[in-house]
Amino acid sequence: MSYNKAPSITAETINPKVRIFNYEPCGEIVRHSERLQQEMDENPDSLPFPEVIQCNLGNPQVLGQRPITFFREVLCLCDNPDLLNKDEARALFSPCAIRRARRIINSVPGKDSGGYTSSRGIKSLRQAVANGISARDGYLSKPDDIFLTDGASAAVNTMMQILIRSHEDGILCPLPEYPLYSASIILHGGTMVPYNLTEDRGWGLEIFEVKRCLEEARSAGLTVRAMVVINPGNPTGQVLSITNQEEIVEFCRKEGLVILADEVYQDNVYVENKKFHSFKKVARSLGYDEKDLSLVSFHSVSMGFYGESGRRGGYMEITGFGDDVKRQIYKVASVTICPNIAGQILISLVMDPPKLGDESFETFEAEKEKIHSSFLKRAKTLEKAFSSLEGVSCNKIEGALYFFPRLHLPSLAIKTAESEGVSPDVFYSHRLLDATGIAVVPGSAFHQASGTIHIRCTILPDEDKIATMIPRLKAFHESFMNEFRGSEPYMNDLRR
Amino acid sequence: MSYNKAPSITAETINPKVRIFNYEPCGEIVRHSERLQQEMDENPDSLPFPEVIQCNLGNPQVLGQRPITFFREVLCLCDNPDLLNKDEARALFSPCAIRRARRIINSVPGKDSGGYTSSRGIKSLRQAVANGISARDGYLSKPDDIFLTDGASAAVNTMMQILIRSHEDGILCPLPEYPLYSASIILHGGTMVPYNLTEDRGWGLEIFEVKRCLEEARSAGLTVRAMVVINPGNPTGQVLSITNQEEIVEFCRKEGLVILADEVYQDNVYVENKKFHSFKKVARSLGYDEKDLSLVSFHSVSMGFYGESGRRGGYMEITGFGDDVKRQIYKVASVTICPNIAGQILISLVMDPPKLGDESFETFEAEKEKIHSSFLKRAKTLEKAFSSLEGVSCNKIEGALYFFPRLHLPSLAIKTAESEGVSPDVFYSHRLLDATGIAVVPGSAFHQASGTIHIRCTILPDEDKIATMIPRLKAFHESFMNEFRGSEPYMNDLRR
Repeated sequence: MSYNKAPSITAETINPKVRIFNYEPCGEIVRHSERLQQEMDENPDSLPFPEVIQCNLGNPQVLGQRPITFFREVLCLCDNPDLLNKDEARALFSPCAIRRARRIINSVPGKDSGGYTSSRGIKSLRQAVANGISARDGYLSKPDDIFLTDGASAAVNTMMQILIRSHEDGILCPLPEYPLYSASIILHGGTMVPYNLTEDRGWGLEIFEVKRCLEEARSAGLTVRAMVVINPGNPTGQVLSITNQEEIVEFCRKEGLVILADEVYQDNVYVENKKFHSFKKVARSLGYDEKDLSLVSFHSVSMGFYGESGRRGGYMEITGFGDDVKRQIYKVASVTICPNIAGQILISLVMDPPKLGDESFETFEAEKEKIHSSFLKRAKTLEKAFSSLEGVSCNKIEGALYFFPRLHLPSLAIKTAESEGVSPDVFYSHRLLDATGIAVVPGSAFHQASGTIHIRCTILPDEDKIATMIPRLKAFHESFMNEFRGSEPYMNDLRR
Repeated sequence: MSYNKAPSITAETINPKVRIFNYEPCGEIVRHSERLQQEMDENPDSLPFPEVIQCNLGNPQVLGQRPITFFREVLCLCDNPDLLNKDEARALFSPCAIRRARRIINSVPGKDSGGYTSSRGIKSLRQAVANGISARDGYLSKPDDIFLTDGASAAVNTMMQILIRSHEDGILCPLPEYPLYSASIILHGGTMVPYNLTEDRGWGLEIFEVKRCLEEARSAGLTVRAMVVINPGNPTGQVLSITNQEEIVEFCRKEGLVILADEVYQDNVYVENKKFHSFKKVARSLGYDEKDLSLVSFHSVSMGFYGESGRRGGYMEITGFGDDVKRQIYKVASVTICPNIAGQILISLVMDPPKLGDESFETFEAEKEKIHSSFLKRAKTLEKAFSSLEGVSCNKIEGALYFFPRLHLPSLAIKTAESEGVSPDVFYSHRLLDATGIAVVPGSAFHQASGTIHIRCTILPDEDKIATMIPRLKAFHESFMNEFRGSEPYMNDLRR
């Protein structure tokens, strides 16, 4: 394509910050799995497996998770408030959904659900979120500390825009990481300061490692402004112990770092011996108040038992910042005018669901419990299956929707991957997909430690699908190992 | 508030690009009008007017505009697809809304409406938008050129992020301007290159003026990358003539500038002698193709006869860029994962509404016509009323939802404003609000030409409200002018 006159816009002449960041957590493997799906739709017997199973995306409803009835009833009524006054609607909606929708509609500008709202969200919905946080933590949350957002990603971007002044500003991020963080830091011109999670200790976060990385960054001239913690973890599936969280709070307080707490998997915990605790609760229970620590907590409607990912609803709770900073955050939020109303409503429902005595309470609890207990079963089944594979180690899946098993592949497999110009994790993932229809994400998408090989797999396919997929996985893995074994055992682990 | 250790986050230590931009198109006046509203709610007889009338915000539904029934029916059914199979639903929803919702639900991932979608939006909805554009323009639009977005503001931000590399990159913007543009340019580190619209020629865009500004910017070392055109205009309410649009196309083609066409008011035209023409249609009808001109057109669900502002739906159509650039745009879009689904559905309905033969067609057309003809009446009434005021000149309201009358105030009023530390437009607007409850926006929020005094007023209050507001406006203005007249006529126009 030729243009008449410089400056023409090409990938070489756009903003270099856009050009260099990499954000394809599920890129090529998704496209390849979509091609296979299309091939299968057109010619059902052309492939050596009965279906493509998407274990690559944290996208619950696309894998068959049904939305919570109460949430959708309220959303539907708020879309069409005329229904609230129609007798026929009573046959279709529960009385408490009707009451809730009426309350919401009465509190929104114009008493309809199509007007601009405040850039931080509708006050009554922020109040509902704050009430939910207060009930969860046992410490007061204030609606003026809540910004409703178009999902957690938008909120993270806003905070990076506020915090990062130049490439000399660093942000501590876990490795392996959810790549939104590195993408957003690069896009806003800052420097990512990675710290390693320790795989051998169940993907634990060790504070001496974080301290080491902080000091190294400071010696290199960086001003480190904040520490990202993802709890429960993505892609790693661990849940931090409360002692660990206390150490992080003490550390960030002492070092003057903002805690950016990604708490979007707070409703996804699968082990008896651990619970989700918000960083705010941990800080407050240590006696630290607004003046001691700056803390941002991110949450969204995407995961949990609700899985309303495409609805783009979320909040951030901002504590330990002055009103002047909050005004600046408000200003950044106002550039995109306001978060979408459906998302605002949904996050208020997530944080303020039906209560005992409400007509929808039992249905709500049953739906929630069904999803949760199924997650629990699926996590156990998959953990066991992967751990049983030759050369694969797999930490306990404690929370979130993912696990991140490590593969110890024969050196011939690694050499073959090299000769094909791809990394071993990509090589294995593509072989797996082509042979079985199981789509996982290569660990390099999450910046796994160099010299190691991982894949990220979700626990989202339903139990029947998991039951059919495991024998296929086992057969593939055995044949893969046999193909590349040669005379030696697996040898790829150069660091040990 | 004190912190334990540097760097503490204060308004002084945040990203300076955030600190310096100004984005309060309706800031202080909104807060003041909200305070008055609250005062009135608490004590109805405390103020010298019966109600606060918000003429400051382009927020149709908050001022009583009813949403389009068909749109809300489809949205509601997509929220709760179970309804599609219930007999009771047939009493509540039109058959064509049921059909449309079924078609949409069958085309979205997971056949529900809560999953992540592609970062550029659901393909079938992009196809619907492309079909609508093709029908509007008579030139083919392709779904792969469409990015669905969370409203036009998000899309504008994405494009600024792509185009701006440093403060040496300039973007041509009209003055007076909708301040999203200056805010977004500053936030992304670029330089705004303003060009003046000519008030004496009905806010016309004169190409020699744009050329002068371009050359000046180039002499100052800037690389000018794009030209923003808002048509119909905000805050100015003009509609560009087709000749004028042709000149702009020729100019941008010759100078190698991307046209960023803000076309969000395309359904708001109120004059017989002008029609909305998209820049793409104008370019194609001049014989210019993808290879000749880079063009981005922005549209949204916020305005028009639909007014679904808080729903945050929109699209950008991107033509004349290579696939490499589109991939980079996709990458930026993917950082916030996907536009919200309700907004995606709504923009598809705006561009692909009920057709002749559909059961909802007549209702849809009647609702649309009612809103449109009322806008037309209101525009005429307000234009006449403002033009009749002493010292006020007001261009024809040709389109959009606004007009931008100019005030020639007595010099004593200007001096009094100065002594109170505010600009004359702010002074007048606050006096007007306190005396009459009518809220307008001071022209300085839109970067009016220096030495001039304007206010921006919307045509959104309903006809009854406008009828009661005009006598109050006239009485206030007369008394204001009498108060400050002194011995001389109005004198503020220093440039003439």
